[in-house]
Amino acid sequence: MDKILDKVNTPKDLKKLKINEKQQLASEIREMIIDIVSKNGGHLASNLGVVELTIALHSVFDMPRDKIIWDVGHQTYVHKILTGRKDKMNTLRKMNGIAGFPKTSESEYDNFDTGHSSTSISVALGMAKARDLKQEDYNVIAVIGDGALTGGMALEALNDAGSSNNNLIVILNDNEMSISKNVGGVPTLLSKIRSKKLYKASNDYIRDSLEKIPFIGRKLSKGIKRIKRSIKQLLIPNMFFEDIGFSYLGPVYGHNIAELEDIMRMSKQIEGPVLIHIVTKKGKGYKIAEENPDDFHSTGGFDKKTGKSKKRKQDDYSKIFGEKLTELAEKNSNIVAVTAAMKDGTGLSHFAREFPNRFFDVGIAEQHALGFAGGLAKTGMIPVVPIYSSFYQRAYDQVIHDICIQDLGVVMCVDRAGIVGNDGETHQGILDLSFFSLVPNLNIMAPKDFKELEDMLEFAVNLHKPVVIRYPRGGEGNIKFEIHNKIEIGKSEKLKEGKDITIIAIGKMVSKAFEVYNILKKENIESEVINARFLKPLDEKNILESIKKTKKVVTIEDNILKSGLASSIKELIVDNKIYDVKLKCFGYPNTFVKHGTIEEIEEMYGLDVENIANEVKELITDGEKEKV
Amino acid sequence: MDKILDKVNTPKDLKKLKINEKQQLASEIREMIIDIVSKNGGHLASNLGVVELTIALHSVFDMPRDKIIWDVGHQTYVHKILTGRKDKMNTLRKMNGIAGFPKTSESEYDNFDTGHSSTSISVALGMAKARDLKQEDYNVIAVIGDGALTGGMALEALNDAGSSNNNLIVILNDNEMSISKNVGGVPTLLSKIRSKKLYKASNDYIRDSLEKIPFIGRKLSKGIKRIKRSIKQLLIPNMFFEDIGFSYLGPVYGHNIAELEDIMRMSKQIEGPVLIHIVTKKGKGYKIAEENPDDFHSTGGFDKKTGKSKKRKQDDYSKIFGEKLTELAEKNSNIVAVTAAMKDGTGLSHFAREFPNRFFDVGIAEQHALGFAGGLAKTGMIPVVPIYSSFYQRAYDQVIHDICIQDLGVVMCVDRAGIVGNDGETHQGILDLSFFSLVPNLNIMAPKDFKELEDMLEFAVNLHKPVVIRYPRGGEGNIKFEIHNKIEIGKSEKLKEGKDITIIAIGKMVSKAFEVYNILKKENIESEVINARFLKPLDEKNILESIKKTKKVVTIEDNILKSGLASSIKELIVDNKIYDVKLKCFGYPNTFVKHGTIEEIEEMYGLDVENIANEVKELITDGEKEKV
Repeated sequence: MDKILDKVNTPKDLKKLKINEKQQLASEIREMIIDIVSKNGGHLASNLGVVELTIALHSVFDMPRDKIIWDVGHQTYVHKILTGRKDKMNTLRKMNGIAGFPKTSESEYDNFDTGHSSTSISVALGMAKARDLKQEDYNVIAVIGDGALTGGMALEALNDAGSSNNNLIVILNDNEMSISKNVGGVPTLLSKIRSKKLYKASNDYIRDSLEKIPFIGRKLSKGIKRIKRSIKQLLIPNMFFEDIGFSYLGPVYGHNIAELEDIMRMSKQIEGPVLIHIVTKKGKGYKIAEENPDDFHSTGGFDKKTGKSKKRKQDDYSKIFGEKLTELAEKNSNIVAVTAAMKDGTGLSHFAREFPNRFFDVGIAEQHALGFAGGLAKTGMIPVVPIYSSFYQRAYDQVIHDICIQDLGVVMCVDRAGIVGNDGETHQGILDLSFFSLVPNLNIMAPKDFKELEDMLEFAVNLHKPVVIRYPRGGEGNIKFEIHNKIEIGKSEKLKEGKDITIIAIGKMVSKAFEVYNILKKENIESEVINARFLKPLDEKNILESIKKTKKVVTIEDNILKSGLASSIKELIVDNKIYDVKLKCFGYPNTFVKHGTIEEIEEMYGLDVENIANEVKELITDGEKEKV
Repeated sequence: MDKILDKVNTPKDLKKLKINEKQQLASEIREMIIDIVSKNGGHLASNLGVVELTIALHSVFDMPRDKIIWDVGHQTYVHKILTGRKDKMNTLRKMNGIAGFPKTSESEYDNFDTGHSSTSISVALGMAKARDLKQEDYNVIAVIGDGALTGGMALEALNDAGSSNNNLIVILNDNEMSISKNVGGVPTLLSKIRSKKLYKASNDYIRDSLEKIPFIGRKLSKGIKRIKRSIKQLLIPNMFFEDIGFSYLGPVYGHNIAELEDIMRMSKQIEGPVLIHIVTKKGKGYKIAEENPDDFHSTGGFDKKTGKSKKRKQDDYSKIFGEKLTELAEKNSNIVAVTAAMKDGTGLSHFAREFPNRFFDVGIAEQHALGFAGGLAKTGMIPVVPIYSSFYQRAYDQVIHDICIQDLGVVMCVDRAGIVGNDGETHQGILDLSFFSLVPNLNIMAPKDFKELEDMLEFAVNLHKPVVIRYPRGGEGNIKFEIHNKIEIGKSEKLKEGKDITIIAIGKMVSKAFEVYNILKKENIESEVINARFLKPLDEKNILESIKKTKKVVTIEDNILKSGLASSIKELIVDNKIYDVKLKCFGYPNTFVKHGTIEEIEEMYGLDVENIANEVKELITDGEKEKV
């Protein structure tokens, strides 16, 4: 049998299909997505959950004239398949290939780049206001998950949109979980709504009423809005969305294309902001993912039949963090852990099982997470808060205002620091060393390997001061370190004595520094290798001593150079008037780094060991030349 | 007649008073506050609004054992008067005097430092969890305004607290406005509740029921919670707070101490999170402030009888900004303005009157404001977003994620940059140059005077790239500049040619640089004065040229030195191997700067003209010595 998907390249093709063909198409798309993600890795469960939703959207609306803003954006594989990118999907998340998130640079069907949670309603409202100011006429649709709805930015936007008169359609994709299980009052409320039977009957009633009354243009009259409201008051257990100003439609079953199309068509006729509540199942259609949506939220390649990961599961920093924290918590009952909906991702599952009362998942709510940690710390607890590097940007004011001004002992663990690879610009963690380094009272460290992470964590929970520990995605570098000196505040660690050049590295880059050392050693170059450990306070004394000795310095960091390790060393040199030094800094320029594997990206920016070694040799040779 | 206030120094004294004495005390406290604020300046309207509320709190609860977290914290004058600081209130907001915000370093009655909006519920929930983990027994109370409730952090916290089982009392101080008029669905909802008559009857009913049933300890049984809920469903038009998990009490009139004490006592008996909805009037008891609460939100000294400001109102940067923006908007219909509840403070009142459809007040919601601006910019509008420097920290992720990654043309106006003075640590704007400087794609400028702000604003709205313009609180410096060269991207402005030293300054510090120039000129020192204009992109070419010529450099900025202008110049020197240069940088160290007048603080950190001139002379003399 011919595949329907073969005939569908754009929404125009899709619109020609009958409902049963669309249902068949949904199966084919599912198959394709499972196939691609099993090879390339990616976000599986969320994409399988929105197949029918996306088909209905592109059937009812007129893209790209109408605009969709996808919250978070990792659920756009179906959308990409249906908007001319089907044949390139095999390059998904690969360097120069199709991105795992919406990219306006990739297609006119992608209306806004997303990657972080809870932004879509704000952006969509901005677009709706712009449309109305320009007196244009099209639909703007935000598609947001129930998890993302606990994010403050989304709640701020709901509040604002609710009182605006602009036409705006918010599709609440309610899959009963964000990444881990949802928490909080709003999700509880949603589950209350959900537990009532899907009220298709009332929707039919509303549609019938709509068809019977004359209305201006395609807009719903105020009288009907009132009727609809009072019908719903009888049918749904609460009026949250209506109370803040939205017309509420739903809940509807998210895997029936005909019903989805119906309710979407209806939404176009209502004036003002509308919220459509759609109930979907994450992982839908792939039994293994349905049963373990957490495991298939973001996955590497896997075996389609068994669902088993292709790579043997290796230890990573997150796991080591979680295990060590659990061990420390056994000895110190004041230690508590706070996560913003990332229990598994940050390695806290074990801790949560062992200490359910001392584990707090506050939802996708980084601002609250840090304010909450401030309150805990002020009251004598030792809160440890692992959050991904790029999401710590969300809590920047709280780190400053609610923690550092009062010098409170919160341990901020910055996971996924440095290049994360395939998730691209929005997820790379190469700004954190910089934006944290300028916050007064904040101490910043990064471990060279797992053992040092353990040591730093133990040091941090006993410091009772604001402290950042940043560590990368994945495992250790190639070097097996035997030296593990005691962690002392503001003290670096000299791993090798040498006279020819000083190599200062921080975090995972210490391993690369050591590899460079090994290469140079073969050519009789004696490098002094310093593990900076602390970016703040920087070990000025020992670093200066080494620089004065070798007169040649190399810095290596997986962060932008600006305001990171490189800048600190440069300032140290100027402040101490060491004018006869040669310097070369390795790190990222002031730019947004696109997706690719970590190795590809490091090589692209000259951060592979081979390139660093070559450039160091040049630096030394240059020096020799000048001496001659 | 003896004043009752004379006998009241601590909450213990307060508890001895009868209700009518407390009402008398309220009048006396009002008088005292009006008196102090008329002299020292400060937040008047909000403090007058919470006199009875604060008296009731300290009567019913047992401070400092019980803990109050004051959201924002500018409404704590009454609290300070009642907790042992009455006699020092004449030093309010003065250097080394009583702070205008809660400070744990000032009193054991201040439980957490606040200053920014919407943090209190997060902090209070953290404290409540800590209390319960330690099996201690006291009350934690968050006092939050209705405006602060539109902030994402507060909504995140409400969501989390609602599903927790911890005892926590949230007092919603509903004064029908935040700083300007409230916006959004949640405020509309509150006004719906408010419009129903205060339902004291139902509270009486609940109390009667409470008194009739046996209950364990002081906790309310689940059965009664159900009854209360169903009573309320009949009485109040919505169930927002109950729906997300709070027990809701109110609304009650916020200026009747007896009723306030009643409802607070009741709240102590309810298990789980409770929200007390109290309706107060900003400026209560001072007619002129009641009628113009906006003008008396934060005020300088004024005449008590007339309410008129003591200082003649002079032009300030915010006003110039607003006027120029209005002028530009007349010519370009794509220009729109976005404020986060700071219409008056940021100078947008005139714009809002002229272009009501192009003016958007999104509420206290900085995250949403910038995401919304991203959506507007993507759709061809030119959003201009003035926000105070320290509040831009709240939107850091959005500046990066929703604007700069896509290189969108949003004009971010950073008002109150640099030292703001009497509001202290939480409001000083000395980090923005630093945290913005490391964001890729972002252009950063600061004007030397009003005219340059106008020029920069005109330049910015035509740039169609992400751009920051930062300017200080208040007016221009002492120098009247005649030179106003055309603004060009990344180009500095040479204001004086000289051979002895290069003085590079940015923003308001250019005026000081010029004063220093004048002082040095008298001693025949010829300074080259460069107005940097752009921190990013920095005018490396012209700055280098000058440095190479004079071999002596001074930088002046009203920002921390780290990652600001000083760091940029230091890096420029190292990167270009200019090793024979003398350098001195003026700015703030990596610390939180306490309250005082701007002049006092500048002097304290050596940023007064006299000190800079002296240090520059020393630098030059040192140079001469070394040459000898």
